[in-house]
Amino acid sequence: MTCKFYLKKGMGRKSENGYPWIYLNEVASYDGEYQNGDIVEVYNFKNNFIAKGYINNLSKILIRLLTHDINENIDESFFKKRLHQAWDYRKRMISDTSCCRFMFGESDFIPGLIIDKYEDYYVIQCLSLGIDKYKDIIVKILINDFNANGIYERNDIKIRKLEGLDQVKGFLTQPFDTKIQISEYGIKYLIDIENDQKTGFFLDHKENRQAIHRICKDSTVLDCFTHTGSFALNAAAAGAKSVLGIDISCQSINDARKNAELNNLSHIAKFECHNAFDALHTWAKEGKKFDVVILDPPSLAKSKSNISSAVRGYKEINLRGIKMVKSGGFLVTCSCAHYMDKSLFESIVYDAAKDNKRLLRQVDFRTQSPDFPILPNFNESYYLKFYIFQVI
Amino acid sequence: MTCKFYLKKGMGRKSENGYPWIYLNEVASYDGEYQNGDIVEVYNFKNNFIAKGYINNLSKILIRLLTHDINENIDESFFKKRLHQAWDYRKRMISDTSCCRFMFGESDFIPGLIIDKYEDYYVIQCLSLGIDKYKDIIVKILINDFNANGIYERNDIKIRKLEGLDQVKGFLTQPFDTKIQISEYGIKYLIDIENDQKTGFFLDHKENRQAIHRICKDSTVLDCFTHTGSFALNAAAAGAKSVLGIDISCQSINDARKNAELNNLSHIAKFECHNAFDALHTWAKEGKKFDVVILDPPSLAKSKSNISSAVRGYKEINLRGIKMVKSGGFLVTCSCAHYMDKSLFESIVYDAAKDNKRLLRQVDFRTQSPDFPILPNFNESYYLKFYIFQVI
Repeated sequence: MTCKFYLKKGMGRKSENGYPWIYLNEVASYDGEYQNGDIVEVYNFKNNFIAKGYINNLSKILIRLLTHDINENIDESFFKKRLHQAWDYRKRMISDTSCCRFMFGESDFIPGLIIDKYEDYYVIQCLSLGIDKYKDIIVKILINDFNANGIYERNDIKIRKLEGLDQVKGFLTQPFDTKIQISEYGIKYLIDIENDQKTGFFLDHKENRQAIHRICKDSTVLDCFTHTGSFALNAAAAGAKSVLGIDISCQSINDARKNAELNNLSHIAKFECHNAFDALHTWAKEGKKFDVVILDPPSLAKSKSNISSAVRGYKEINLRGIKMVKSGGFLVTCSCAHYMDKSLFESIVYDAAKDNKRLLRQVDFRTQSPDFPILPNFNESYYLKFYIFQVI
Repeated sequence: MTCKFYLKKGMGRKSENGYPWIYLNEVASYDGEYQNGDIVEVYNFKNNFIAKGYINNLSKILIRLLTHDINENIDESFFKKRLHQAWDYRKRMISDTSCCRFMFGESDFIPGLIIDKYEDYYVIQCLSLGIDKYKDIIVKILINDFNANGIYERNDIKIRKLEGLDQVKGFLTQPFDTKIQISEYGIKYLIDIENDQKTGFFLDHKENRQAIHRICKDSTVLDCFTHTGSFALNAAAAGAKSVLGIDISCQSINDARKNAELNNLSHIAKFECHNAFDALHTWAKEGKKFDVVILDPPSLAKSKSNISSAVRGYKEINLRGIKMVKSGGFLVTCSCAHYMDKSLFESIVYDAAKDNKRLLRQVDFRTQSPDFPILPNFNESYYLKFYIFQVI
């Protein structure tokens, strides 16, 4: 018998409207037995069925919901259906699907499951216990239905600790070379799905990298926090006069240089290993100027509690960045921090312009690429803010 | 001697940071003589120069600022410079500049001046007295520097009343046929710059019309408030199975049909004259369904004071619209009302989904096309909100 959970009066309304999590403090009682990772049923205080999902009482998020249909069983055909829906969506939404986020957890209605596709290779992340249990089924579907040549798990992520899960990484198929050459809208990258950040590449800027082309032609470009060079190489491919990419990781800078070679762009795109905070500070002081300055820092607000230090960090780099933009040039500025609210981030950038006595014109605003869809009822799915401003 | 205006203590800070208007109640005193339409100088209470602009004491907006440079004269070379900057910006920002907003008033640093370019023809709107005075100079520059074949003024706009200006329209060059065939990203339209809404075409959706292509292929599409068919024709060109465009204006519907013929899309895109509010109500009740429903109403919130009726209007159409989207289909929903705040509009759409017990996934969010740039320091320049949601 499936264990049934009954919510307190007034609880569960958000979940009835699509919010995919049930918190421990919403539950009044339960009827039946369960083990962590089991599928359980959730009912409101009136005893009306809300949804089915998997449970883990080690986590504050007690239950993650998989379906609102009481007759839908959570089995291989369930996952098959969800994966096909996710792929159909991507084929429709993005022009170059050779590499993309194949499955974006809650936003694709499988909480806790991330799958990134790099050509014929797939990288899986299971963020929670309940989904970890279905790993074999998912691997099977990716091989049979989606021609996976190889699958790798990047479950070396801290968040798994909260679920009582180990941090592991390794092959889920026969081993293969984890250095993979990918192509995104014609730009080639050599990525390392075993050792690099996340699953090997920041796919969420896919469309944003395209968006900078128009401002980079004939320009001098500074790309801060370049990682393995993705914005920098797009700037170069768009016809920039010169591009300088900087990153604190010398490994990333080496990889960026290799990527520049791979695209025959080494004569335009140069890379140097610097702490961007320091470099921006020094160069702004020295009066260095560029036509385009790109700021794509890692998340400076990893939780609600460090918002104020994050504000200082974003303010600092935007202040220096804007100063270094020539009159009439462009600032590309991003925040990938969910906790950095859009309007707060805007106010930081506007303040930075004001302090520089410069005027901004918004040319473009974007979020994460459509293969990372946003659920309005699940604000946690919205994290990336991307702006292009002209700096007058 | 240029008349000098001194602001009250604490006033003018926004203008020092780029806000382009000075209100009557900000002024402490003035020194000199002026006539409405004259260029005057603005100083803060410490007697520091802020900017120069033109004055009209018939308007609540007393002075509209043209330059923060005390040495810049407001003459032909000033307008020449501004117009060239505006055109350079557009050439960089948009791929198809055959038709575009050439000059977007405050956002292009000439308050009150709107210029739309339709192939070699230009349509001018002067929203304020100060700029009306420079009409001849602007016409001369458009002819000499931008090869204008003909220029028409659409100054038949109510807002001019507040400036004490007449409502007029007519030729500013030799007369020409005001029915002009334009092309936008390959779709042709016959527009009527003399008699149609605004200056003849809604250029601000230029990029948004492109954005619907990916969701319209193989789909059945309902385009509400279609005007002369622009979204509908893009849906058809993208490979829709069938498209129905509706509009309350039978004249617009006739024009839309002609545009469909012009593009050989009449077999796919059909047009019917209906009040969209009524049609949505009836058809939603009847259970009609489409793969894609597009809602691009005229502004339902023309001032702050009618927000609550606007909320009802947007709620009504989004409620019906969402109901008519097949499961997994798409809602395209817009608001062109500046006073309809982004987050308020989102809450209306989310509520409409909730009332339908449907779940939304945000695929895309956009604003007005980059030839209508947004000045963060001048919130009035931000008006268009455009969303694509998948409706689950």
